[in-house]
Amino acid sequence: MITIHGYSPSGNCHKLRMLLGHLGRVEGRDYRWIETDSAHGATRTPEYLAKNPNGRVPMIETGDGRILVESNAILYWLAEGTAYFAGDTWQRAQTLSWMFFEQYSHEPYVAVARFICGWTPLDSPRRADLPRLRERGHQALAVMEKHLSAHDWFGATGYGIADIALYAYTHCAEEGGIALAAYPALRAWLGRIESQPGFVPMPPIAAENAERIARSL
Amino acid sequence: MITIHGYSPSGNCHKLRMLLGHLGRVEGRDYRWIETDSAHGATRTPEYLAKNPNGRVPMIETGDGRILVESNAILYWLAEGTAYFAGDTWQRAQTLSWMFFEQYSHEPYVAVARFICGWTPLDSPRRADLPRLRERGHQALAVMEKHLSAHDWFGATGYGIADIALYAYTHCAEEGGIALAAYPALRAWLGRIESQPGFVPMPPIAAENAERIARSL
Repeated sequence: MITIHGYSPSGNCHKLRMLLGHLGRVEGRDYRWIETDSAHGATRTPEYLAKNPNGRVPMIETGDGRILVESNAILYWLAEGTAYFAGDTWQRAQTLSWMFFEQYSHEPYVAVARFICGWTPLDSPRRADLPRLRERGHQALAVMEKHLSAHDWFGATGYGIADIALYAYTHCAEEGGIALAAYPALRAWLGRIESQPGFVPMPPIAAENAERIARSL
Repeated sequence: MITIHGYSPSGNCHKLRMLLGHLGRVEGRDYRWIETDSAHGATRTPEYLAKNPNGRVPMIETGDGRILVESNAILYWLAEGTAYFAGDTWQRAQTLSWMFFEQYSHEPYVAVARFICGWTPLDSPRRADLPRLRERGHQALAVMEKHLSAHDWFGATGYGIADIALYAYTHCAEEGGIALAAYPALRAWLGRIESQPGFVPMPPIAAENAERIARSL
């Protein structure tokens, strides 16, 4: 059985729950989830760093003790051979292109703005970064909106791991103060994802984080 | 013939020249390089943004006008079916894992510190970021050093696109004020790469940039 070390409010971790849900794999039967609170140092213990020197979630362990890190590489591994990573080499390269876009041009702004709003103190000096993060986040969403004005999915052959990777933090971008109102094609795409067979929603965030977010917007 | 839109001092762009060199492909015969000065707005023109709304280099165009962006996705496309992206699904996932590490935990610090030193004015307010960028850059290099203390390569089956991706900005990290002296295994790995068949060195940077770097260290 696969073990996932993950933090439930993390979009990067939620990507794995989403794909596993679509693949019909059930928590407890097909995989085990070890809740790992990366916001409170659980990925910085000597035990964790021995497995992942980069100190991040998600991380998976196979039944025979092999380890894989980086959410989008884990998506690739889980999806290979399924419809969620299909097509010829060119089409698969386009899917990977969107996944690299997600990690480089989207997550560092959209996810980090949300993290600062919900997971740092209201007087954190990091909050001075929010205007810049929100501006860059909107730039990423505008690139997505442009693509979605002409395509249903980021996967070249249909819904797949590029869509899952980009959904993870886009659907909760407003928790970082990044409004989605100006992106109609993007909002329609979020809805199409949420009606896919086996879709698993992100668990509700804790009251403490929701309260901070409410006071950050 | 493939057309590459690239900026020669960019490590992300240089990755493509490196892989094409290893594959025995020759500029002018097998591919065309259009020098695109992303540091001076060449990726922000309406013509460029019509092809790549994210406004970055590198970008490739195939002979029939199809476009692919994101350096590591282009590496994947060029390397598929060669020894530079080999192995079973697990091994290929490990290769991709290092490539996502490169774009998320390495490039935003190691490459950006170098860019600020060489490509922004000596009184740029961005220079206030340098201490934090260098600290995070060293964290990434320490993760690499740990891996290289037990492995020759980042590719699970040997030298390949994960090594090329990580070489691109590591070899010039000192231009951003990130010293490599403390990383002996990493320096040995750089040397192994530079002795690979078909290795192409990064072209020398312009005198103006070298001068700024010299005054930044």
